[in-house]
Amino acid sequence: MSEVRNELVQMARRAREAGSILARSSTGQKNEALIRVAGTLWESRSAVLERNRADLDASFAAGLSGPMIKRLTLDEKKIQGMVEGLEQLVKLPDPVGEGEQWRRPNGLEITRVRVPLGVVGMIYESRPNVTVDAAGICLKTGNAVILRGGKEALETNRELVAIIRRALVESGLPADAVQLISDPSREVARELMRLSGWLDVLIPRGGAGLIRTVMEQATVPVIETGTGNCHIYVHRKADLDMARRITLNAKLSNPAVCNAAEKLLVDREIAASFLPVALEELSNSGVEIRGCEETVRIWSKAVPATDEDWDIEYLDLILGVKVVSGLDEAVDHINRHGTRHSEAIVSEDYTAANRFLMEVDAAAVYVNASTRFTDGGEFGYGAEIGISTQKLHARGPMGLRELTSMKYIVRGSGQTR
Amino acid sequence: MSEVRNELVQMARRAREAGSILARSSTGQKNEALIRVAGTLWESRSAVLERNRADLDASFAAGLSGPMIKRLTLDEKKIQGMVEGLEQLVKLPDPVGEGEQWRRPNGLEITRVRVPLGVVGMIYESRPNVTVDAAGICLKTGNAVILRGGKEALETNRELVAIIRRALVESGLPADAVQLISDPSREVARELMRLSGWLDVLIPRGGAGLIRTVMEQATVPVIETGTGNCHIYVHRKADLDMARRITLNAKLSNPAVCNAAEKLLVDREIAASFLPVALEELSNSGVEIRGCEETVRIWSKAVPATDEDWDIEYLDLILGVKVVSGLDEAVDHINRHGTRHSEAIVSEDYTAANRFLMEVDAAAVYVNASTRFTDGGEFGYGAEIGISTQKLHARGPMGLRELTSMKYIVRGSGQTR
Repeated sequence: MSEVRNELVQMARRAREAGSILARSSTGQKNEALIRVAGTLWESRSAVLERNRADLDASFAAGLSGPMIKRLTLDEKKIQGMVEGLEQLVKLPDPVGEGEQWRRPNGLEITRVRVPLGVVGMIYESRPNVTVDAAGICLKTGNAVILRGGKEALETNRELVAIIRRALVESGLPADAVQLISDPSREVARELMRLSGWLDVLIPRGGAGLIRTVMEQATVPVIETGTGNCHIYVHRKADLDMARRITLNAKLSNPAVCNAAEKLLVDREIAASFLPVALEELSNSGVEIRGCEETVRIWSKAVPATDEDWDIEYLDLILGVKVVSGLDEAVDHINRHGTRHSEAIVSEDYTAANRFLMEVDAAAVYVNASTRFTDGGEFGYGAEIGISTQKLHARGPMGLRELTSMKYIVRGSGQTR
Repeated sequence: MSEVRNELVQMARRAREAGSILARSSTGQKNEALIRVAGTLWESRSAVLERNRADLDASFAAGLSGPMIKRLTLDEKKIQGMVEGLEQLVKLPDPVGEGEQWRRPNGLEITRVRVPLGVVGMIYESRPNVTVDAAGICLKTGNAVILRGGKEALETNRELVAIIRRALVESGLPADAVQLISDPSREVARELMRLSGWLDVLIPRGGAGLIRTVMEQATVPVIETGTGNCHIYVHRKADLDMARRITLNAKLSNPAVCNAAEKLLVDREIAASFLPVALEELSNSGVEIRGCEETVRIWSKAVPATDEDWDIEYLDLILGVKVVSGLDEAVDHINRHGTRHSEAIVSEDYTAANRFLMEVDAAAVYVNASTRFTDGGEFGYGAEIGISTQKLHARGPMGLRELTSMKYIVRGSGQTR
């Protein structure tokens, strides 16, 4: 076994032991610890901001990109957001221990009960708030967590994790329930992905590249999160004013997130009446329009789209626009180029709407609403640890329940088979 | 793209198209097709047995092992078993379309509805009945399936799949809902495991070696099934007669299956009174006893166990026996050496039993009952596609519901965020 792997296994062993204590802790104990983490974090905010400053200085010196710097930067308001997130977790119901029971004809009493997953691995990028979010959600659900954040945020994450571990100990819970990998090498990340038997699940959070790497290399079960090449499809029987409002909202309200619209499909029958108004307004708000040939003919300010455009998640003020012959082509295009995240039709036609809901393969499908609603909070789930675009275990916004598994408890009185 | 991969992608594309038709088929249509598959299979049994004879001839010539030949061999009774399995599926409720709905304060109506997974891949070994079981369960749950059975069963599987496809077409459903990979090369298996984006899940069924290979190499989400290094732990406050009956049942009623006991742990305090009687009886039934040092001292006919023994799933008339100091050592031993399948304590002590249920990490934990009950039928689920020993998506016996995912359907009236 390599040195790196050996260290990770030691870490995982400690996590498993801590996890088995967490699994037996009451909701009250876990909530008290969450409150203490929140309090300690707020008290220690100046220390966190100082370490964040050090990370930022190093990142400027290394010439990191603007968006990366932005994701890395903390301020008092962002720390307050983390604190509020922890406080909100306290209020949510604890899924651990929920269950159902039935009795078999032979007298066996079978209980199917929710239990923590055990040890969760998180691989993420430069945003330090993921550190606190993930630790809080895992604590609430009785899971131990091993965190591997981006190397540019290492100093900040070290401080955050030290604070969390201190608060855990003060609450009578094991510090090793939350551990940070502080070796920034790629070898560590690779070994972490291959820690099957030790990690119960691995959740990557970040860009498409990170997620692809994890899906490719991991032997540990992975939950794929986040990539969203989302479409708004304006059907020929749409309320065009509603379609315009939904398109603008889905593109503009937060272009950097996974549930933002990246593509607009428009039925040929209404393209000439819909596109000029909608695209003019989007363009005035700074959106670059990349259109198919017909789109460019209808609205000449559009840049011609390439074949690659239909598969790209821009996460930016760019929108791909394509004229389609109707519902069949729209559904086919979405199932071919979408990432199975969130897809919307705007239509007043009952059958068209139903067919879209049925035939489009995505975590969330919408009629007459913005794709931006795919979100744990908007769905009423409280906390969210990511949005799953796979079909196993969890699909769509993942709340607390998605960080649990089931266990069968069978009580007998000597039954044999 | 390699030739092999290209062919698999074509296959998967056809499967996906067929799956999207199945997904929209009514329960009635799917049930009719199941009845027709059952009928056609029974009518064609002589053709199946003839092809099975050809497989068997080749396997004898190749010098295959006795157990492998046994698993490969079909007879009229086994075909009747397949037919009855299909008929039973007809009676089970269809999970597709089940769901719940809620309304958000902004008026959005959110429905969380069960949908098929899409395209299921099955990799298995020499048992041809897996072909029919898997096709039936996938059909009932609206999934297309790509089957890759063992090369020794290829002729039998070809005939079975031809029968199933014929019945599908006669029922107005697409033949490509059930496809068989007839290229027996390892390269095909490897590429199948790496067909992410095309397969929604891969289910390996077979020995520990097959499952380990799939877990190691797959990029497609996998459901790990089956390995069971199961323990019976006889606590010092056990009813010793009950303990003896449970141990005999768990070891002897079907030693070749994953929920059979492979290890016996006994508290030191009762070892001298329990072991001689129980081990004598096991030995008289042909079980080889591999004991720890203390076991050998107490019952001298035991063969000394090696360190490796504690980790082996024998699937045979062999039992590893270890004397332990008490509950803590038993739980620790099980969590270290078990495969998280099924674990039992025999005890009349309330607290010991509860601690065992809580602290042992396994899909099914038992008090005072045989581990042999971990089974879809015994749990009351009807059909079973395998027993999951992982924690994501499915744990324990997997029924029809475990072959589905969820989809969010959101109906709005112009909502934006």
